[in-house]
Amino acid sequence: MFTLKVMPRFTETDALGHINNTELPVWFEQARTPIFKFFTPSLDVNKWQLILAKIEVEFIAEIFYGSEVEIKTFIERVGNSSIQILHEVIQDNKLVAKGKATTVHFDHQKKKSKPISGNIKALLNEHLSS
Amino acid sequence: MFTLKVMPRFTETDALGHINNTELPVWFEQARTPIFKFFTPSLDVNKWQLILAKIEVEFIAEIFYGSEVEIKTFIERVGNSSIQILHEVIQDNKLVAKGKATTVHFDHQKKKSKPISGNIKALLNEHLSS
Amino acid sequence: MFTLKVMPRFTETDALGHINNTELPVWFEQARTPIFKFFTPSLDVNKWQLILAKIEVEFIAEIFYGSEVEIKTFIERVGNSSIQILHEVIQDNKLVAKGKATTVHFDHQKKKSKPISGNIKALLNEHLSS
Amino acid sequence: MFTLKVMPRFTETDALGHINNTELPVWFEQARTPIFKFFTPSLDVNKWQLILAKIEVEFIAEIFYGSEVEIKTFIERVGNSSIQILHEVIQDNKLVAKGKATTVHFDHQKKKSKPISGNIKALLNEHLSS
Repeated sequence: MFTLKVMPRFTETDALGHINNTELPVWFEQARTPIFKFFTPSLDVNKWQLILAKIEVEFIAEIFYGSEVEIKTFIERVGNSSIQILHEVIQDNKLVAKGKATTVHFDHQKKKSKPISGNIKALLNEHLSS
Repeated sequence: MFTLKVMPRFTETDALGHINNTELPVWFEQARTPIFKFFTPSLDVNKWQLILAKIEVEFIAEIFYGSEVEIKTFIERVGNSSIQILHEVIQDNKLVAKGKATTVHFDHQKKKSKPISGNIKALLNEHLSS
Repeated sequence: MFTLKVMPRFTETDALGHINNTELPVWFEQARTPIFKFFTPSLDVNKWQLILAKIEVEFIAEIFYGSEVEIKTFIERVGNSSIQILHEVIQDNKLVAKGKATTVHFDHQKKKSKPISGNIKALLNEHLSS
Repeated sequence: MFTLKVMPRFTETDALGHINNTELPVWFEQARTPIFKFFTPSLDVNKWQLILAKIEVEFIAEIFYGSEVEIKTFIERVGNSSIQILHEVIQDNKLVAKGKATTVHFDHQKKKSKPISGNIKALLNEHLSS
């Protein structure tokens, strides 16, 4: 599991007085940073190795400004070239949202997927959801 | 079907040179405006009737800056208090992304869902997919 | 003068019930697209010629969701390598915000400014604020 | 002085490979949180006391993904009902951007400014730029 703490930003609220739905994919992308680092330890954007295939977000309860949010990120499954990821968002001890992401090891020059090395698979497998 | 044309914004690109994944939920929210109007014709945020329960985005091909995007939005299913919505994103005659959203007719004071009226169901059913 | 019409997005509202301040620079960037095209007619991001040196935004009145916004953009001054730009935001026949931007003709490989050609200066000068 | 550390988000980059200009006002808003707390200690958005009158951002050097950013915020001047604020952005020991903001103590019901109390002025004055 990876953990990211996020302080919601005022601009992330909307006129309903809570955090807007579109911010969850932003937080989840940031929560996947440790996974990005497995592929590009320097985080150099010119050496990027991943592409996103699919995301899902389930909104369980309102998320509010003024209180820190914790995002727990798990690896659900490691495939030949893809990774399925789970996110959970907790605010004030309450599960407020869940997410999924499928990311693919990708050659941005050749524009095609490529296998994940055994070394990186081993790193990912240390973070499997139980 | 509802149609929205969006000109991608420069700030919506990312360091990979294409539109970042997090912009699709933003565009899809905007593409649901005609549905918002069925419930709140004035779009007055103080009379808002909907809440979002779930979103999904499937990324099919890169989306680029400099070329208009068309978003087609369909009603997939109208339930007692919820609506399932489909989105398709076309750029340069190519399907580049698809999305789903589940939105719920919601009483923001009582914090609970409420049935969709027959009148609004009829309006929604005019936009069913297939 | 260049004109851009923008329909505010729900996610651009904040908990105060109006459009958040951080959206104005986003709209202004989009309003400068015709200027971008003078330098990069294809809008190909790999051939980008400009960099932003400074922005200012003055918030005059609240901007609301549900009503279209018009952004008028003027060239204030064309220098050797820089351009000073003015923006005005009108909603419901009311001036609600003003902005300024200084953009610089820039060689992204050499990381230094370069003179604006006479041809482009002539195009820009057609849009001078009176 | 107030200090905020921000880890740039991948979505905050743009196709030029650096952080897009529109993110600076977002970070600066977040950097003003301690000032928001002087007026609304709970950060309850329903008790908000401030409105933004003006912002300026000066872009000094490129800001990159993958390296933490430090934002230093100073009070420049406290007026009867307004506050002038300075921001400095440092990345890798380099000043990369500066900003200004003018915020106004505001009655969101009556839609007019109101004087800042002596107590809050004293708190603000502890953070004056030298």
